[in-house]
Amino acid sequence: MNSDTLRYRLLDAQLALAREKRRAVILLLTGHAATHKGQVVNRLNHWLENRHTEVHALGPSSEEQSRPYWWRYWRRVPDRGRIGIFIHGWYGDALFARAERRLSPGAFQDRLAEIRAFEAELAAEGVVLLKLWTDIGRREQRRHLAELQQDPARAWQVGVNEWQRHGQHAVIEAIGRTLREDTRAPHAPWQRLPFRDPGEQLTRVGRALLAAMEKPPEPPAATLATLPDEASGVPSLGRASAAVEARLDKAAYRERLAHGQARLAANAREVARRRIPVVIAFEGHDAAGKGGSIHRVTAALDARQYRVHRIGAPSDEELALPWGWRFWRRLPADGRIALFDRSWYGRVLVERVEGLASEAEWRRAYGEIHHFEQQLLAHGGVLIKLFLAIDKDEQLRRFEARAATPHKRHKLTDEDWRNRERWDDYQRAIDEMFARTHLPGAEWSLIACDDKRRARLAVLERVNERLEARLASAV
Amino acid sequence: MNSDTLRYRLLDAQLALAREKRRAVILLLTGHAATHKGQVVNRLNHWLENRHTEVHALGPSSEEQSRPYWWRYWRRVPDRGRIGIFIHGWYGDALFARAERRLSPGAFQDRLAEIRAFEAELAAEGVVLLKLWTDIGRREQRRHLAELQQDPARAWQVGVNEWQRHGQHAVIEAIGRTLREDTRAPHAPWQRLPFRDPGEQLTRVGRALLAAMEKPPEPPAATLATLPDEASGVPSLGRASAAVEARLDKAAYRERLAHGQARLAANAREVARRRIPVVIAFEGHDAAGKGGSIHRVTAALDARQYRVHRIGAPSDEELALPWGWRFWRRLPADGRIALFDRSWYGRVLVERVEGLASEAEWRRAYGEIHHFEQQLLAHGGVLIKLFLAIDKDEQLRRFEARAATPHKRHKLTDEDWRNRERWDDYQRAIDEMFARTHLPGAEWSLIACDDKRRARLAVLERVNERLEARLASAV
Repeated sequence: MNSDTLRYRLLDAQLALAREKRRAVILLLTGHAATHKGQVVNRLNHWLENRHTEVHALGPSSEEQSRPYWWRYWRRVPDRGRIGIFIHGWYGDALFARAERRLSPGAFQDRLAEIRAFEAELAAEGVVLLKLWTDIGRREQRRHLAELQQDPARAWQVGVNEWQRHGQHAVIEAIGRTLREDTRAPHAPWQRLPFRDPGEQLTRVGRALLAAMEKPPEPPAATLATLPDEASGVPSLGRASAAVEARLDKAAYRERLAHGQARLAANAREVARRRIPVVIAFEGHDAAGKGGSIHRVTAALDARQYRVHRIGAPSDEELALPWGWRFWRRLPADGRIALFDRSWYGRVLVERVEGLASEAEWRRAYGEIHHFEQQLLAHGGVLIKLFLAIDKDEQLRRFEARAATPHKRHKLTDEDWRNRERWDDYQRAIDEMFARTHLPGAEWSLIACDDKRRARLAVLERVNERLEARLASAV
Repeated sequence: MNSDTLRYRLLDAQLALAREKRRAVILLLTGHAATHKGQVVNRLNHWLENRHTEVHALGPSSEEQSRPYWWRYWRRVPDRGRIGIFIHGWYGDALFARAERRLSPGAFQDRLAEIRAFEAELAAEGVVLLKLWTDIGRREQRRHLAELQQDPARAWQVGVNEWQRHGQHAVIEAIGRTLREDTRAPHAPWQRLPFRDPGEQLTRVGRALLAAMEKPPEPPAATLATLPDEASGVPSLGRASAAVEARLDKAAYRERLAHGQARLAANAREVARRRIPVVIAFEGHDAAGKGGSIHRVTAALDARQYRVHRIGAPSDEELALPWGWRFWRRLPADGRIALFDRSWYGRVLVERVEGLASEAEWRRAYGEIHHFEQQLLAHGGVLIKLFLAIDKDEQLRRFEARAATPHKRHKLTDEDWRNRERWDDYQRAIDEMFARTHLPGAEWSLIACDDKRRARLAVLERVNERLEARLASAV
């Protein structure tokens, strides 16, 4: 295939991609310095229809630095129909940080695991991944760098970084090998590109991209996250004790509420001062009182510090991106609090039970949820997951009360009645969710809500306990 | 109306707003320090359904600082159906910058004009604006600050800023008066709130908000931007001379193209080094060769520096926000280049001619376009507007050639044929666009494209000239 044929076939494949909008493509180039990466990307981009292409090679902004690490890449994932080209990207971060010993061997291994999870998630959602490692021998690299430096038109391409990386050629070579071995997957293959002149390099990159677009790799098989071994204290609706406490009178409730809120206000200020991000997910039965509980929490917070995200139907921009994007985009910056009124758990609850997600999708979601939550924790954040539960009879009473009260009627929809018909399916899905996702730092709190006052106090208490536990830690 | 009634009516009005998704609401509080602004916003937010509310009171991030000033507020405009609450917001920036003499009197006046334009644009697109000025006498302010400082639970609210603003009470009072007088409009009214206890303050803010939601102010009348006086050198399709130059042979074209691209590459690097943002808008007749010209420009650029934005149908997230948002969100960061394949001029061209925008909308767009472009220029950016023109016969020849060539057929749509039927209407709309928007720093370049080679060279030439003119200036 000559270069013109290749070019037209690439363009055809790209236009089909843009027309069908079923897949996105990520092409990532990393490897040794002075291997024509920039030049090849420029020329490749010139071959492509660049209205459907985006190239990323920038360092993180302050908004990115104040959020969990992967946020900066999630926000750059291309929409379906588009091609995202990354120079170094997440591999450069890992490679150079390890070479410069900013990442310990253990932290480097953890990062590789995160990369595998990130790529598997993208691939499962229709992102085709192609990763290229640009090779060059040490001696040839020195010659090429010297040559560049002597050419006035290209000398700007050579800086301190390039020479430093040349000095670390053997280290980068060794880390690169580990990197590729540990992140190679059928859905995210690596190809090595030995050093050649830019024209030949371009042809090889173009061919690899064409092959990936014409015959996209199989997405990874959905694997169900393994159950944590006998996690202790996993909540369960089935096992929930029906401990009946006396109803709380209004005066006692008000006093305790004010006390819990004052405590929360102080905790939240400390969270802001120490720049700790906080995510509070509210899930629960319909009519269990999520809205009211959220209100009792936010009443204690400075309005400038928090944001409530109601998770409903995705927008079309969200539908054009992998499932997780809608949640990643809403992660709070350091020191801020995001409250989710329903959350990423929708996929293993309502979407599962109502058949809106396929079995492969909701099974896979368990792994994706795990990684999402771990990222927040690894960034030093606090994750508080609350499940507000009522029993079936109490729900019926509340539905009927809502239907009868003019200013509450808007809260009751046909969907609520439909969901109620599948009560038992929901109960099973909820218990499975608890069993699979009640993990250290990401524990569920099951709040019995048959008594609204006690429920609201319990929510506040739980939020306070979790914040205080985090604030008590030194970091 | 007692406070409970007020609260329910507010909630009702908010739920109607969220249901109908026709309008958004902005409530902005600014004014003297120590006037319970934060407390009132917290309590008001607690009254409202906070899943449809967002509160903004943060300083700019690095991403915001590297873009034209209004970008930071455009990205915070609430979607239809939502309420955005701003503490100080754009008024705080103007007020304190002027008080601390970081804005000269002239720059302050300019800022007020920008505020008027910004608010008129939002109001015309269905954003209800309510602006509250919190008043307090100097002596009372001192007393209140001292009181706060002695209360351990609230002392954190008083910092250096608050005392400094107390020291400048008279200055802030005077600037505030000007601010209000100069930005008061039927669609963006000011209300003064004399200092009261927080409960009373809350009731007054709630009442004002309720009134604004229940009886939204009239949007501003569409005013047609006045024509610039006899702007010199305004291009015109009617007047375009049919200067026939000899066709350029391929060898001569290639040489000149390579030369123009090398020059552009050097200019673009300098633009990056000096952190100047560049916007290049491509408009033109269908089949005039926009795509090919864009390609010849981007071929000279580093793929990491630029991005091509194809402006097609808006997404649903875009439709939920004022018209200008789609363009603001795509403004490049400092040192980067955004190429628009079709642009914000669609509103006064295709949308006007095809009746997709009402007369009021496209007339208004002239003013909005003007402000958008001025903002980029004021931030030190370069704006290059290119209109690629062909005549009617040439267009027919190209359509027919496209229809006959398999790999170009995708470029020709039914819409292209439909647009062609209204050729004369388009010509009139285009000439009016030139007359109204050919302004200093925002000049149009009319590129005759009947000869593709000459056209591409002319595009490169024009881009280079404009970049070089900017680079020659000291700033």
